[in-house]
Amino acid sequence: MSNKHRSRRHRGRGQPRGKAPYQPPPKTSAIKRNTLRIIPLGGNEEVGRNSTVFEYNDTIVIVDLGLQFPEEDMPGIDYIIPNTTYLRGKETKIKGIIITHGHYDHIGGIPHLAHRLGNPPIYGTPLTLGIIRKRQDDFRDSPKPNLRVVQRDTMLRLGEFRVEFFGLSHNIPDSVGVVIRTPVGTVIHTGDFKLDPNERAENVTEMGKITQYGRQQILMLMADSTNASKPGRQLTEGEIEKNVEQIIRQAKGRLIIGTFSSLISRLSQIIKIAEGLGKKIVIEGYSMRTNLEIARELGYIRYHKDTVVPVQQMHRYPKNKLVILCTGAQGEGRAVLMRVANREHRFIRIEPGDTVLFSSSVVPGNERAVQRLTDGLYKEGAEVINYQMMDVHAGGHALQEDLKDMHRLVKPRYLMPIEGNYSFLKLHEKAAIEGGFSPKNVIVAGNGQIVECTKQGCVLTKERAVTDYVFVDGLGVGDVSHIVLRDRQQLAGDGMVVVIATIEEKTGRLVGTPEVITRGFVYVKENFKLIKQIQEKTKKILVDKDPKIPANDADLRNKIRDQIGQFLFTKTERRPLILPVIVQV
Amino acid sequence: MSNKHRSRRHRGRGQPRGKAPYQPPPKTSAIKRNTLRIIPLGGNEEVGRNSTVFEYNDTIVIVDLGLQFPEEDMPGIDYIIPNTTYLRGKETKIKGIIITHGHYDHIGGIPHLAHRLGNPPIYGTPLTLGIIRKRQDDFRDSPKPNLRVVQRDTMLRLGEFRVEFFGLSHNIPDSVGVVIRTPVGTVIHTGDFKLDPNERAENVTEMGKITQYGRQQILMLMADSTNASKPGRQLTEGEIEKNVEQIIRQAKGRLIIGTFSSLISRLSQIIKIAEGLGKKIVIEGYSMRTNLEIARELGYIRYHKDTVVPVQQMHRYPKNKLVILCTGAQGEGRAVLMRVANREHRFIRIEPGDTVLFSSSVVPGNERAVQRLTDGLYKEGAEVINYQMMDVHAGGHALQEDLKDMHRLVKPRYLMPIEGNYSFLKLHEKAAIEGGFSPKNVIVAGNGQIVECTKQGCVLTKERAVTDYVFVDGLGVGDVSHIVLRDRQQLAGDGMVVVIATIEEKTGRLVGTPEVITRGFVYVKENFKLIKQIQEKTKKILVDKDPKIPANDADLRNKIRDQIGQFLFTKTERRPLILPVIVQV
Repeated sequence: MSNKHRSRRHRGRGQPRGKAPYQPPPKTSAIKRNTLRIIPLGGNEEVGRNSTVFEYNDTIVIVDLGLQFPEEDMPGIDYIIPNTTYLRGKETKIKGIIITHGHYDHIGGIPHLAHRLGNPPIYGTPLTLGIIRKRQDDFRDSPKPNLRVVQRDTMLRLGEFRVEFFGLSHNIPDSVGVVIRTPVGTVIHTGDFKLDPNERAENVTEMGKITQYGRQQILMLMADSTNASKPGRQLTEGEIEKNVEQIIRQAKGRLIIGTFSSLISRLSQIIKIAEGLGKKIVIEGYSMRTNLEIARELGYIRYHKDTVVPVQQMHRYPKNKLVILCTGAQGEGRAVLMRVANREHRFIRIEPGDTVLFSSSVVPGNERAVQRLTDGLYKEGAEVINYQMMDVHAGGHALQEDLKDMHRLVKPRYLMPIEGNYSFLKLHEKAAIEGGFSPKNVIVAGNGQIVECTKQGCVLTKERAVTDYVFVDGLGVGDVSHIVLRDRQQLAGDGMVVVIATIEEKTGRLVGTPEVITRGFVYVKENFKLIKQIQEKTKKILVDKDPKIPANDADLRNKIRDQIGQFLFTKTERRPLILPVIVQV
Repeated sequence: MSNKHRSRRHRGRGQPRGKAPYQPPPKTSAIKRNTLRIIPLGGNEEVGRNSTVFEYNDTIVIVDLGLQFPEEDMPGIDYIIPNTTYLRGKETKIKGIIITHGHYDHIGGIPHLAHRLGNPPIYGTPLTLGIIRKRQDDFRDSPKPNLRVVQRDTMLRLGEFRVEFFGLSHNIPDSVGVVIRTPVGTVIHTGDFKLDPNERAENVTEMGKITQYGRQQILMLMADSTNASKPGRQLTEGEIEKNVEQIIRQAKGRLIIGTFSSLISRLSQIIKIAEGLGKKIVIEGYSMRTNLEIARELGYIRYHKDTVVPVQQMHRYPKNKLVILCTGAQGEGRAVLMRVANREHRFIRIEPGDTVLFSSSVVPGNERAVQRLTDGLYKEGAEVINYQMMDVHAGGHALQEDLKDMHRLVKPRYLMPIEGNYSFLKLHEKAAIEGGFSPKNVIVAGNGQIVECTKQGCVLTKERAVTDYVFVDGLGVGDVSHIVLRDRQQLAGDGMVVVIATIEEKTGRLVGTPEVITRGFVYVKENFKLIKQIQEKTKKILVDKDPKIPANDADLRNKIRDQIGQFLFTKTERRPLILPVIVQV
């Protein structure tokens, strides 16, 4: 490592990123008659908060309504949901929300937004709706969403659109792509996918249907760019299955497998392998148990009831017959693996001979947390296997060559990369052009940028729908503004100092000594002198003041803030938030 | 992406990691006579704050005194330096501090710690000392360090030790390994290195010397584990030179190269190539200019003075004759590249045809910042090339096969992996055993864990020196405790609420309405009702109280804190820090 490599993220002295707050929304012009508008409300400059609006005359259909996880400079924020300002006043036009699959970046906005959009019907496959329904349990105050099940062969008529589905492989079963037949042409939206025609059952890529689309003069293909920065082809689940099976078979002690609770296909695979090898499975972690229950109830996962044993009973089995499947592979602080590493788990401690398998990738932003977790497991004496050492995880998204295959199969007139950071959209474009796509027929739109299509073709307009972040924090939706975030950053970086002075109203004179309270700034017990100096400085400002100036004068408070701030910066090179309070008596 | 993958890092409701504060330092036993103690004060559970103590009777020598960059849950912290509690009272024994090379994770503790250690002589090669000297300019209040230059062939006598050096390749010139000849045997400390015998001049790996050591029955090799998790061999600078040259040669427009200002070898290489191709170079970024000045003054970099042109004059040259070398490849907020991407740079805007080359890796923790930067550059219209697309960066550290080579060459009796996360040390151990090392002769010590060597051999004891984090924040060293950090985390996550009530001393009665000030909690302008409710709740607590209870009673303040806290959590599911202030008049 060398010098000054780490970016400064916590000082919080800068402007938080994102759009400026409280600007009046830019007026989007009235929709032209007989023109299809396609508007990515999110997911086109990030991985997350996927949502796309399709609008034609009085018909609006929305595909996906996801959430995005916060960046490092958004302390306290739970997540970000799509901004639906564009749809305000158009609620009656919304004929339906179509959900491609059950991952949070595609469904997470529903409890917060569906009822604000007039509670339109939400269409999804059985597992997708099962997960939506389960999540709704956490939002008992939100109106019940209007869920309607579809199958891969369902055809819907939604206003002036006809909608069909096709199966795509992803790391959750029951994922579908969406075919929207509009009066100006057919648009195909892939959701998240990889090409894995060998997958079975609810996880198959329906190559037959996709090949058919190639004969139908598709107007536009909107395709997943999550992995468009990666050359080559995605690993198939079949390829990793061999490795995972070998690891489970050869484990000499207990095998602890950490993975995402949302990777239902992977969970299913691991349980099947372990069961086949006569091993018992312990399932630890609330979200994992919940997802497995949903999947089992709906018949997506099948296993003998004796295969899964409660954690309290695992000591009854030989160590090499135990597979513990658990959450926390991203280093999440309270999930099972971190508690095991920290010896805080009620039942599981690392024992000699344990192997921990991370059957997962590392989500960007979690690298250090996963490293800490791995270090902790090694310190406890475990062996660790991860995707950097061996192919034990296959991602759920198409890589560059997979994308080119998709382009070649569907043969759309236009390609619109979606779902990914802006770089990924551009790299998707680049791959498409390499694969023979005409550059002028690739449309790279940022969030909110409106694409208009008529029978003549599609254009990227200069108009934009509002896509400012909408923050969810606890029970609040949108009540944390950029101002609140900026304060949080300042508080995080340097803490705060409250200075309380009492002034006699009649005489304007200071009563007693100002009180100083500070948090997150310096350790008070070792800095009495500094606190004393703040009191003295404040006293001086108030004693020197013109007695005619009222004590609640903003200028007076500003003076205290500025002078104490300047003083503390000189002394410490920190800029705590300073709050002067003047009490009049 | 799927659900719940991101670890929660900002809520700040948990305990910050690290050791508990203010525990009395565990007593380390008196040093045994004629026994060598080796104590890693840092760098053995992290990448950073490298520092190792060698102690034998009345001789102490320290190798490196670096800094570590903070983790995500240490808001406001500038960096962490080694804890030198173990050396307290032993200052007169310290015969010298030896610095292996000029990177901050090896020199960064000097301005804060050298004078506290009795200002012992600091030994380093010319470039290393040049960088230490330059950095000292930022700490004018610290006593001048006692710098003494060494060359690769210097031999020092430091107390009972003799010290020699050997050249190692790294991505900064003038890096050395250290040979410490002690009465119980010879210990070799590699500092950071890769094996690159083809490197020239000040960056060569002195294979001849290393081979010699193999015949000298070396007691212990302490070797760099930074890249011990990676199989294979490190790329050489020669290999990437070809690619970088090709990119510089073929650039049709301007080429903007972002890299670390500390990668002085890389900077030198790029300047040489560009000059050879008749291109002009613009150098942007303070640290880059500074480092190049030092390296040029000392003769490590040579170029014609006309090769470098000021940024203001670059418009005079054809675009394909311009190479802009700049800082910010880690996505640092205020460095050149981010300012360019945000259109905030005074002179440089992305223009059509520009290519941005990231000749760097991404330091763990900076992934998202670098992604944001890359997205910004694409949005501005640049082409981007990075190490994931092409070999345009070679790391400075030995990979697994390089490490095995080093073990085979030096043939030490013991191996002690150093410099890396605990996982890396374990993986270094694993590689060594694969390479034929006897498991019982590999010593994996955590931070502070004391290794004792006599002529009979070395053992890892159970004793530990204190290694609790020492935080540097602005001008403060060690004045930010874990308590302060915990407050910062809470403030960051949910902000704070100050409730101020005035009480008449004589009667114990509330005067007026309590005042509420809040920051970082909710946006006040949209939450008047909530503020009003806080006032009412507080009023009720104070009106209901027994008038005999004094107003400054801690129980009363706790009551306000608890009840308001509970109320706000019910309303918002947030836990702001609540500060009740009671003013008596």
